[in-house]
Amino acid sequence: MSRRQADNSAQRVQRRQLLTATAVGTAASLLGMRVRGADADPTRVQGAPPASLGERSPFETVERKPLLGIVSLTPLEQLEGTITPADLHFERHHAGIPSIDPAKHQLIMHGLVDRPLKWTVAELKRFPSVTRTCFIECSGNYFPRAGEHSPPHLVCGLTSQSEWTGVPLATLLREAGVRRGASWILAEGSDAAVMSRSIPMQKALDDALVVYAQNGEALRPAQGYPLRLLLPGWEGNTSIKWLRRLEVTDAPSMSREETSKYTEPMQSGVIRQFSFEIEARSIITSPAYPAVIEPGWHEIRGIAWSGLGRTARVEVSTDGGKRWQDATLQGPVLPKAHTRFGLPWRWDGEATEILSRAVDDSGYVQPTLKQILAERGPGSGPYHFNPVTGWRVLRDGELRFSPTG
Amino acid sequence: MSRRQADNSAQRVQRRQLLTATAVGTAASLLGMRVRGADADPTRVQGAPPASLGERSPFETVERKPLLGIVSLTPLEQLEGTITPADLHFERHHAGIPSIDPAKHQLIMHGLVDRPLKWTVAELKRFPSVTRTCFIECSGNYFPRAGEHSPPHLVCGLTSQSEWTGVPLATLLREAGVRRGASWILAEGSDAAVMSRSIPMQKALDDALVVYAQNGEALRPAQGYPLRLLLPGWEGNTSIKWLRRLEVTDAPSMSREETSKYTEPMQSGVIRQFSFEIEARSIITSPAYPAVIEPGWHEIRGIAWSGLGRTARVEVSTDGGKRWQDATLQGPVLPKAHTRFGLPWRWDGEATEILSRAVDDSGYVQPTLKQILAERGPGSGPYHFNPVTGWRVLRDGELRFSPTG
Repeated sequence: MSRRQADNSAQRVQRRQLLTATAVGTAASLLGMRVRGADADPTRVQGAPPASLGERSPFETVERKPLLGIVSLTPLEQLEGTITPADLHFERHHAGIPSIDPAKHQLIMHGLVDRPLKWTVAELKRFPSVTRTCFIECSGNYFPRAGEHSPPHLVCGLTSQSEWTGVPLATLLREAGVRRGASWILAEGSDAAVMSRSIPMQKALDDALVVYAQNGEALRPAQGYPLRLLLPGWEGNTSIKWLRRLEVTDAPSMSREETSKYTEPMQSGVIRQFSFEIEARSIITSPAYPAVIEPGWHEIRGIAWSGLGRTARVEVSTDGGKRWQDATLQGPVLPKAHTRFGLPWRWDGEATEILSRAVDDSGYVQPTLKQILAERGPGSGPYHFNPVTGWRVLRDGELRFSPTG
Repeated sequence: MSRRQADNSAQRVQRRQLLTATAVGTAASLLGMRVRGADADPTRVQGAPPASLGERSPFETVERKPLLGIVSLTPLEQLEGTITPADLHFERHHAGIPSIDPAKHQLIMHGLVDRPLKWTVAELKRFPSVTRTCFIECSGNYFPRAGEHSPPHLVCGLTSQSEWTGVPLATLLREAGVRRGASWILAEGSDAAVMSRSIPMQKALDDALVVYAQNGEALRPAQGYPLRLLLPGWEGNTSIKWLRRLEVTDAPSMSREETSKYTEPMQSGVIRQFSFEIEARSIITSPAYPAVIEPGWHEIRGIAWSGLGRTARVEVSTDGGKRWQDATLQGPVLPKAHTRFGLPWRWDGEATEILSRAVDDSGYVQPTLKQILAERGPGSGPYHFNPVTGWRVLRDGELRFSPTG
């Protein structure tokens, strides 16, 4: 059978499509309409020439409204895959975004070192570089402010993922020569908050990077241009932006951000300090509020991540938590990285609830809100809240955020 | 030793830095200067609030000038890592970029199928999705137009890499039911060229995707919004943009782009047709023209890729090809993907030449220009030219493109 003897109904489909297209195109020409508009048949008009920058489609709305004037959230429900476009990376600043001329910026290393050193940005780029993909998540990433009408970005839009490139902090420490007794490093930014955190030497020598590139290009100012400390898997505020100073010390510096902030009171009365690691978490990003679905097949999709290692498994329930199935993970599953999961699901039109639960390769299981509150005490938060969450599916196909997990 | 008893020279470094910063900041305040300007001490002024989109630094110049009105090149020498920002992906169109309303766009599958089908974009997004990172390279990607003054993007800036998300073409073929004898698929775009290519069924069932997302977000119009065929590892023109029609056939359709174009005459007199696969290649992106380097340590960096599989090895020579060393590959090394390589190099200030040569896991070795010309004949090109190239290093630290390989 030749391709010219094709199925009749296929021919009909094609012919109808082409006729419609022709009619619209001709009408557009006759009426002198805007020929590059989306109503014209695009095959009948010369398209726009290549541009210096390939901008977004006017049909895509990605503009974010900063929340409370202090954060911009990543629109998780609008994204696919694992990379966050650089301009949609979440933002949380302590005194705004400084404007820095990279030609004048320097990084200083001093304290318990044999040779105090300073480097320009150009000098740092000459060192052997490392590229790795990982997430950065704010430690205060649970705030379903709109209750059951919270979309995913309002639940946990303070996590984003990029491919970062920079020089290992271990390389710089080797250049300076770490002295006996050195056990911590104070990392300090160039913003008006002079944001600083104490970093244990072990992390500095393990996988810490001083990065200058994000998703292939220079860091954006909102992400620390021209230099940022990157501590994979650790709470975002430790990845000091606009990095200018590294002081090697023999004790934590007890800066404001590790005493009055970024500590968590526990139910036992103890206050947890230096709680650096992001524990395993997941969220279903589709379907999710405010989408409205129809009965039939859907792919339940979302992201899972853990600062402790690789996502080992994501369990999904489509019946409010009675039964759980393993979702498929999109490879490569990288450590300390957002991983996409998916599970085909046929919605029968009845009210139900869909939930996801991440398990990482350290064996950590994403807890319920009840478990977290039992450990922390009522009214605790918002730091390191990573509860199982879900979406109630109403009979009319509307979805509602469900924090009960 | 406490951190307060730090090395004297370190204290000096810090104190001098802080004094300078204070002086500038105070002067700026007194004179009522633009306090958010990069000359002010950024720690003394409140920074800009979080924005709806995190734009690039004004100190970074990434604007591209489209070449000959038909291509926009990826500025390889300005990039790190492996991801190409979506707006810097190379562009090569056959009749410009159409403007398409995704709500009105449909994909039709017909021909040798049991059930001719059409899908809206929303319907395609409901299928189980696949995310993968791979390059797209134009088959005509060798044009050092400026001779020895060609920077990397003028040598081979028609290759870019993205994380793509979409539905396997195999899934759609299964939905429609492929008939006996079906062996090719004609893929057709919605542009004014009605760009079309014939795709062997084997590739369609292997790893072909119909993608709707790139680097996490919707495709850009210049990259095929709202739907693009993605054939990992194959020459870019086969990844049909603005995809609207898939016709299953029993023979290639012999479209213009596979008869008068995208074929290569060989020295033997035979003309190579359907030369889909991109063979192994590499380029050093740093140091490269127009950079000027100083004696001392540098990291020779670049990208390597192959449409046949994974990059197995990149060999680098720093003495004009006499000796070759294996560069370090940045993991994860993905199949049909750009892979970063790096090799520390101490330049002694003498004239020399640096070169790179990729070997993939199929055993294919990147050829020299001489080898390619011997196979294709003098004056041949420009399709599937992937020669070893390098940079001559002059005694004053200037670099020159070197095509001799």
